[in-house]
Amino acid sequence: MPCPSPEFIHSLQALLGDRVSQSEAIRAHHGHDESCHPDALPDVVVFPESTEEVQAVVRLCARFAVPMVPYGVGSSVEGHTLAIHGGVCIDLSRMSRIVAVDAEDLTATVEAGVTRVRLNQELRHTGLFFPIDPGADATLGGMASTRASGTNAVRYGTMRENVLALTAVLPNGDIVRTGSRAKKSSAGYDLTRLLVGAEGTLAVITEVTVRLYGMPEAMASAVVNFDSVAGAVDTVIQAIQCGIPVARAEMLDALTMSAVNRYSKTDYPERPTLFLEFHGSEAGVAEQSLLFGELATANGGGEFVWSTRDEERNRLWQARHNAYFAGLQLKPGSRCIATDVCVPISRLAECIEATYRDLEEEGIDAPLFGHVGDGNFHLMLLADPNDAADMARMKAVNHRLVERALAMDGTCTGEHGIGIGKQRYLAAEAGESALFAMRAIKRAFDPDNLMNPGKIFSLAG
Amino acid sequence: MPCPSPEFIHSLQALLGDRVSQSEAIRAHHGHDESCHPDALPDVVVFPESTEEVQAVVRLCARFAVPMVPYGVGSSVEGHTLAIHGGVCIDLSRMSRIVAVDAEDLTATVEAGVTRVRLNQELRHTGLFFPIDPGADATLGGMASTRASGTNAVRYGTMRENVLALTAVLPNGDIVRTGSRAKKSSAGYDLTRLLVGAEGTLAVITEVTVRLYGMPEAMASAVVNFDSVAGAVDTVIQAIQCGIPVARAEMLDALTMSAVNRYSKTDYPERPTLFLEFHGSEAGVAEQSLLFGELATANGGGEFVWSTRDEERNRLWQARHNAYFAGLQLKPGSRCIATDVCVPISRLAECIEATYRDLEEEGIDAPLFGHVGDGNFHLMLLADPNDAADMARMKAVNHRLVERALAMDGTCTGEHGIGIGKQRYLAAEAGESALFAMRAIKRAFDPDNLMNPGKIFSLAG
Repeated sequence: MPCPSPEFIHSLQALLGDRVSQSEAIRAHHGHDESCHPDALPDVVVFPESTEEVQAVVRLCARFAVPMVPYGVGSSVEGHTLAIHGGVCIDLSRMSRIVAVDAEDLTATVEAGVTRVRLNQELRHTGLFFPIDPGADATLGGMASTRASGTNAVRYGTMRENVLALTAVLPNGDIVRTGSRAKKSSAGYDLTRLLVGAEGTLAVITEVTVRLYGMPEAMASAVVNFDSVAGAVDTVIQAIQCGIPVARAEMLDALTMSAVNRYSKTDYPERPTLFLEFHGSEAGVAEQSLLFGELATANGGGEFVWSTRDEERNRLWQARHNAYFAGLQLKPGSRCIATDVCVPISRLAECIEATYRDLEEEGIDAPLFGHVGDGNFHLMLLADPNDAADMARMKAVNHRLVERALAMDGTCTGEHGIGIGKQRYLAAEAGESALFAMRAIKRAFDPDNLMNPGKIFSLAG
Repeated sequence: MPCPSPEFIHSLQALLGDRVSQSEAIRAHHGHDESCHPDALPDVVVFPESTEEVQAVVRLCARFAVPMVPYGVGSSVEGHTLAIHGGVCIDLSRMSRIVAVDAEDLTATVEAGVTRVRLNQELRHTGLFFPIDPGADATLGGMASTRASGTNAVRYGTMRENVLALTAVLPNGDIVRTGSRAKKSSAGYDLTRLLVGAEGTLAVITEVTVRLYGMPEAMASAVVNFDSVAGAVDTVIQAIQCGIPVARAEMLDALTMSAVNRYSKTDYPERPTLFLEFHGSEAGVAEQSLLFGELATANGGGEFVWSTRDEERNRLWQARHNAYFAGLQLKPGSRCIATDVCVPISRLAECIEATYRDLEEEGIDAPLFGHVGDGNFHLMLLADPNDAADMARMKAVNHRLVERALAMDGTCTGEHGIGIGKQRYLAAEAGESALFAMRAIKRAFDPDNLMNPGKIFSLAG
């Protein structure tokens, strides 16, 4: 695709003044993400401050046939924001207004550039919170676009369940509001759910209306370690099946725990471990924890260290959130191929065991951790980016892992998205007919293929 | 559109043998539904028994350019199954196999013709249940197609949240499986949520994979009546805001209670009344009920009649499910214009009050009841179908009610769907740009407009 013409750049400047940048540093920042994919710089970065400005930018891009890539904070791990066809990066970080908090209705509407931590700060005085927590302090627009989830999803669902309505600019420049603040609706096609997870290929999301939850009366955290990963996983599966409404259930394997201890200066036993959280009334939290502890013991769990102290809980989740960075330190200079399979929970233990056997046969050490209550886990395949054979070997492990998950009626990506890195698995997972339908939707919305082109799928096929 | 040709009928017969009917009685049965819309008969009704047979029928319809209408049990209240352009009615009732119950994963896969009561009968020995309950014993395929919900949605969500995956036949004859049995996925466009609520206009759903839930350890029902509708509504709103996880919270107004007593031979006080249900542990259910009862008292509630007896609970919900039929008896010979607005719960009391004022000014008696925990209620506007002025007056009340709901950022339909009857409100609710996007999807999937044509929107606009 052609470089943007001077006329196009002048038009952008006429619109946004100095909120248009072609500087190398700005372009480099926006052409890089947390993934192992090579950097790909946009030709120009714009910083709109309203839906109407986004609309004007989209109309300009349409008129000049320039690709556009929506951008939040760049925390994607599958290359979603890389400008692989150049064009305009639409940085939404200045769209950071809290539009409305409707405490009585348990909803909030925010501009797409508001991050989840910021939203929760704003909510602090209301007694409400927004639970979805992918680890990174991502924007709500970005989280909607990748259908993000994270540690709380086992209890509160993902962005799929927690976005009520969106405001978005379509590739033709139309502004749509999908959905309303009603809790449910049967009015026509579910455009909200179509744009959630569309990775910016169908529209630029500019506002997000989300569900909020009352801050639980009591929160407790717990840590318990096991002889084996299977014991930890089985405990969580049984808890889910018993209906214990666990709020967080994260498994970290022995290697991950060792990396965590080194990185976060903690002294947890370096064994397969569950990090847990329970929400409810004082009595409810105690009841849940007691039941969970009994299941853990029955599955070979050690001491069940339980606490309702905020400091203890924060220390735990800080350590968990840093597990990715801790893992990276195991092999300095490496890049991480982050796997993201999700399988029905009845197959989870088997999927993890087969993956360990594969690692053992390959002689690879890779930290494994994840959201076991959802059947979703991540394997950190640490590869030397300058060693093609090493990269290929790691990718082959991921390939076999995805095939294993699909054979178990799972998905290649529980929460990271397809982006660039998982396109070859989408056809295997969804099937050619479903992929054909997805492409038909893309063509209907974006016939000139200008909105985040080359993500999810190519249109050549 | 033309009548099906003899050649087309012969092709259907070659495919399905005697499972092709052109009999007047069969056509009349399939050309009638629970709505107030005039009957519209298909030219022919077919009874496929597998996804492959549906595929073959769809391919024939595509080849001969014959409209097709998917059909479950005909319980739609917005004319979804009426063959307004003639063609083939695809009756899925013989696709009634339980494909799989995966108790460990809390999922079941069933053919589209399985009804919710049948599914729950099959689940009885597993300790699991499927909660979504729209009142009628609808098929899972039909419930998915209208994005149905009902009395349990306040706790368990709607079909939107509870369908994990679908098998469906697209207008081009392709079979797609959308989604997997993984609890979450970020793999590409959410075709599952696109087909849920598409009212059969984008595909014929042939299999549905749904979430199941563990049967709660304890269930309690309760009834409490109030001086005013506002007291009842405020109690529910406060309970939701306090985080009481009420499983059902239905409000029936005084007129509805009087109709219910007459129809179901009950002797409830004829005052605004809440029918409630609580799910949880023994202690949890008692705690929830206690809290709820306190809120009721604070809002002018009378005696809080609480029970964990199954018979009491069943009697309550049978009476609630029959409220529609009870209401019809208030004006024998009438047809019901069933309204279905849903508003943010903070606006619900105001919406209901303004509606009562409208009814009073018009001198209309109309039962009002609904799923107040969701902000969704139904007004039964009983009109004499032979009195055009009466019909027009009732439709005008509905029109003003929808406008009121939309002004409150609500929806014209919480659970019934657009069908034929609410098309004129869809543009007002979704906006022209969103409607344009919906039509673009329809055209991309079904360029010849053969799949349930004329439902949700016309393609002329």
